[in-house]
Amino acid sequence: MNRMEIRTDLALEARESSPGRCEKEEGVKFDESFDEKTGIRVTTVRVLNEAGAAAIGKPVGTYITLEAQSLEQNDEDCHRQVSEQLADHLRGLVGKVLECGQKAVEKTAPRILAVGLGNREVTSDSLGPRVVDELWITGHLESASPKINGIIPGVMAQTGMESARIVRGIVAEMKPGLVIAIDALAARSVSRLGTTIQITDTGIQPGSGVGNHRHSLTGETLGIPVIAIGVPTVVSAAAIVYDTAQALSEMLRRSAGMTDAADWIEEQSPTEQYQLIRELVEPSLGQMMVTPKDIDERVAQLGHTIAEGVNIALLGAEE
Amino acid sequence: MNRMEIRTDLALEARESSPGRCEKEEGVKFDESFDEKTGIRVTTVRVLNEAGAAAIGKPVGTYITLEAQSLEQNDEDCHRQVSEQLADHLRGLVGKVLECGQKAVEKTAPRILAVGLGNREVTSDSLGPRVVDELWITGHLESASPKINGIIPGVMAQTGMESARIVRGIVAEMKPGLVIAIDALAARSVSRLGTTIQITDTGIQPGSGVGNHRHSLTGETLGIPVIAIGVPTVVSAAAIVYDTAQALSEMLRRSAGMTDAADWIEEQSPTEQYQLIRELVEPSLGQMMVTPKDIDERVAQLGHTIAEGVNIALLGAEE
Amino acid sequence: MNRMEIRTDLALEARESSPGRCEKEEGVKFDESFDEKTGIRVTTVRVLNEAGAAAIGKPVGTYITLEAQSLEQNDEDCHRQVSEQLADHLRGLVGKVLECGQKAVEKTAPRILAVGLGNREVTSDSLGPRVVDELWITGHLESASPKINGIIPGVMAQTGMESARIVRGIVAEMKPGLVIAIDALAARSVSRLGTTIQITDTGIQPGSGVGNHRHSLTGETLGIPVIAIGVPTVVSAAAIVYDTAQALSEMLRRSAGMTDAADWIEEQSPTEQYQLIRELVEPSLGQMMVTPKDIDERVAQLGHTIAEGVNIALLGAEE
Amino acid sequence: MNRMEIRTDLALEARESSPGRCEKEEGVKFDESFDEKTGIRVTTVRVLNEAGAAAIGKPVGTYITLEAQSLEQNDEDCHRQVSEQLADHLRGLVGKVLECGQKAVEKTAPRILAVGLGNREVTSDSLGPRVVDELWITGHLESASPKINGIIPGVMAQTGMESARIVRGIVAEMKPGLVIAIDALAARSVSRLGTTIQITDTGIQPGSGVGNHRHSLTGETLGIPVIAIGVPTVVSAAAIVYDTAQALSEMLRRSAGMTDAADWIEEQSPTEQYQLIRELVEPSLGQMMVTPKDIDERVAQLGHTIAEGVNIALLGAEE
Repeated sequence: MNRMEIRTDLALEARESSPGRCEKEEGVKFDESFDEKTGIRVTTVRVLNEAGAAAIGKPVGTYITLEAQSLEQNDEDCHRQVSEQLADHLRGLVGKVLECGQKAVEKTAPRILAVGLGNREVTSDSLGPRVVDELWITGHLESASPKINGIIPGVMAQTGMESARIVRGIVAEMKPGLVIAIDALAARSVSRLGTTIQITDTGIQPGSGVGNHRHSLTGETLGIPVIAIGVPTVVSAAAIVYDTAQALSEMLRRSAGMTDAADWIEEQSPTEQYQLIRELVEPSLGQMMVTPKDIDERVAQLGHTIAEGVNIALLGAEE
Repeated sequence: MNRMEIRTDLALEARESSPGRCEKEEGVKFDESFDEKTGIRVTTVRVLNEAGAAAIGKPVGTYITLEAQSLEQNDEDCHRQVSEQLADHLRGLVGKVLECGQKAVEKTAPRILAVGLGNREVTSDSLGPRVVDELWITGHLESASPKINGIIPGVMAQTGMESARIVRGIVAEMKPGLVIAIDALAARSVSRLGTTIQITDTGIQPGSGVGNHRHSLTGETLGIPVIAIGVPTVVSAAAIVYDTAQALSEMLRRSAGMTDAADWIEEQSPTEQYQLIRELVEPSLGQMMVTPKDIDERVAQLGHTIAEGVNIALLGAEE
Repeated sequence: MNRMEIRTDLALEARESSPGRCEKEEGVKFDESFDEKTGIRVTTVRVLNEAGAAAIGKPVGTYITLEAQSLEQNDEDCHRQVSEQLADHLRGLVGKVLECGQKAVEKTAPRILAVGLGNREVTSDSLGPRVVDELWITGHLESASPKINGIIPGVMAQTGMESARIVRGIVAEMKPGLVIAIDALAARSVSRLGTTIQITDTGIQPGSGVGNHRHSLTGETLGIPVIAIGVPTVVSAAAIVYDTAQALSEMLRRSAGMTDAADWIEEQSPTEQYQLIRELVEPSLGQMMVTPKDIDERVAQLGHTIAEGVNIALLGAEE
Repeated sequence: MNRMEIRTDLALEARESSPGRCEKEEGVKFDESFDEKTGIRVTTVRVLNEAGAAAIGKPVGTYITLEAQSLEQNDEDCHRQVSEQLADHLRGLVGKVLECGQKAVEKTAPRILAVGLGNREVTSDSLGPRVVDELWITGHLESASPKINGIIPGVMAQTGMESARIVRGIVAEMKPGLVIAIDALAARSVSRLGTTIQITDTGIQPGSGVGNHRHSLTGETLGIPVIAIGVPTVVSAAAIVYDTAQALSEMLRRSAGMTDAADWIEEQSPTEQYQLIRELVEPSLGQMMVTPKDIDERVAQLGHTIAEGVNIALLGAEE
């Protein structure tokens, strides 16, 4: 059975689900490092061209992923280390998209608009609003540089508008040089929930985020660079079904030597499997998500960690 | 002593504080009615021209005020009666600004943007956000008419932007035919706190609202009509000082026959009085506000009452 | 494969997971009715003696379950129908435990203590606090009968105390005649999340509830009858794994005719399966829960529905 | 005019309003110190006997008041300095009431119950709940010493019970050696709002607190020592009226030489004044309170500052 086409917003996972295809491609480059002291793993996925984008199913651009199991704990020191790493990588990416060195952020982008996507009233989708709540807002201070603005546009059920259109209107009015969008993401693997942060210069794509944005928020649609910061907070319940099927197939092959049965399971087309399993397991599974038991506390902490990272990157850089 | 120039956002109170001047003017017309059954008093102040505007200190336009002591109570029936009255007057004003009969709202303004001004995190300033939270949002529904959009722009400390600019950007992007802005107001008299609703077609003026907007939100600045709905939730503590001085002066004159002392108090210039009293009473008084003891509950109920009124006016009109 | 011993707080599900055992027993009686008009299914499980308790894994007592798919929708009429049904059954159970007719509630139990168990800060565990927030509290009103008191004791991480001990202290001080405890539950089947309400006269058992109470809250420990009202809001992620394994085993048997493989899967002991699957699927699965995507909204609505039911049962009974 | 009998929960203010009486008494001792570096003023009022209690209108005991204008600002360093001073004085008072040295807290009172009085839903009354939310709770940890428990009992409208009775029930069940109650207070002077912290070993008296407790929470009623920590968050609007009358009387005497009028104002009995002024000023004034404009933010910060002080005093003492 091929790993099913269950949605993931992480480029890291998109690569994992189709390793064969990606390795053959010229268009995707990977880079990984692990810091034993902090326990933070940094993976950079670079999608170089359309061939790479087709192989991995993500647009051309850079995807930096920070993983730290320590984010599960309520340990201030660990969170600060992650904030600082995040600040470093964010500053690097800002420098890159503005085509200037890191020191020149305030000159090239005198105004930055931070956008907290998602729904404040839905715990698993509230990361974006929480981060913007804690940012150092300087947009109204004469002497500040860069000037940071923040907006929490709300979701369509609250506003009747795509958040992308609200942002577009504000961008046209305020003319910032850069948008930084923060959003809660859907992952494929539960081990990534609340332990992974992705930064990318490709912006927000349609269909991404916990709330499934319909429109994109990218350099193309806004006319200025868009950096997106995301943390996976949910996995679809269907993912557990597929993973279990794959695990059972491996069990049958390895432990019981029942190759036929394993083959049969793996040969089922995704659609057949989905239908059968859905029918047999639970018709209501599609409405369900998998989330950490302590999601409320986790989202609050992560909001703080990311806000700190952005604050350091934009305003706290002492070089 | 003249009634001091303490700020009020209510046209009704602006009139009260300068009755002599206004009566002489041709430019201001008043209309008042009281319904004994519901206990709701409706006052309409029409500022007809610049002379009237100068006399009353409020821009040319219509100001409709609903007063109901019953709003103090947690009585669902009373609140519903106020919602219905509010809906009636709002529909009338919408019809007027769109230069069409009441029936034609959905044809002339197929899209209406409701704006919840103020700060959700500050109880006395949270009315606007609370109302927009409870509106029936239809802007994203294909078949709805009129299409209602809602936005809670936040305050400058949160966004680094004037809420007026955020609204301007969204108006340019979404092209609604009408803005309805909801805001908490400052009043002059504590008896009006939480018992009065003002509807006006003049929009939001600089310096108005609990949070003191710096920029206006009017037909002139947005290019489309702006109706504002406001409820006073605070009185400045200084108002109590002035009122007490006036009361004492009357006491000295009436009860003690000490005309000289009364005259002396009244002859003090506002500035002298302010300096003396401030010094004698409390230097920190300027940072203080007067508010009902149950402001938290009161704001929650009023938010519900006004949202219901707007919902009925825009979507619930069966004629 | 036997259905695994995954925890459920619902007597209904305990029965389903061991149908064979229960049917043979004399000690458990079932009763089911379905109202086509309202779409509400009512199942009564009566555990008559220790043999029945052993068979079903739940203490001796009565368990009434209301199931209504309509609870998934935000439809006020459906919720009201459920509130009224809940009120009826609750009144019946109160009458039974106080050994009096329904009319005599206020005479026999002049004081009732409602206890909102769980953690207000954790969405899936916040049902109890939300219900008590909305109850009509009459305990301090001289003329009220019955007198309703309410307490939200908090969870151990917040108070450092078992909620059972807090309740015991208050019961000793206030001497109510009855405790009604409201709690969020763990279910076995995702189709029951947010659509099922269980009322029981057996109180709260150790290990039950989303927050896993360590101590019981029962007639035995408090010295007065305890009625518990619960709604399942989470399913352990492990449940999905087991259900998928069972579904696959059925698929292999039915569709592929691979009886051996199906048998092999079913023959694995629960422990072996758990180890293997956990290892193959996700080591972090144990920290995960499955919950509806709209859990925040669902819990808010259910809190309202149950509060209304309790209010009608205790104070709104017009006979 | 005598300073009117407007309620204050601060012993400091009770002394100020009757300086003549107190100075003559043997039963009240004052002690004041001011630290120029931190800007914190510490005043200790010791009511030594019943004569002192009658003079000052507060029970026999010790009242320590910390005043710092810096608490108005959102400055972390200032708040930490206050937390540390608070910790010092609290530790001293705990040592005194337990009749042991400061080092022996954990031996004499192995269990301490922190009580967050007031109403979480009413901003100006929410200090107690906010503090207990942030305490380090150790009551359930085997090895912790002292064991800290926390309870937020709610207010009578929420529970139907006096919070004093809830606390009494829990004290009987948990048998702590000490209660520390935290509450929002009413002050007489607006300059003290949010800038003053009072610690006392006399517990909570009937009629005190923003929510006006009806029952006391004292060593006498609970059988164990009760230390109360309070911060004034409101002043009654009537206080402004009286202060203004007094200021005007002084103005008439000093600036205008109108001794008769000043005398007349001061000769009015409190009741006459209250009637006249209330009538002339505003009948609804009694329902109003004076509070800082930024009360929401102020209460949040103070909750944090006090929680930190209590945490340091009870668990952070390294000697």
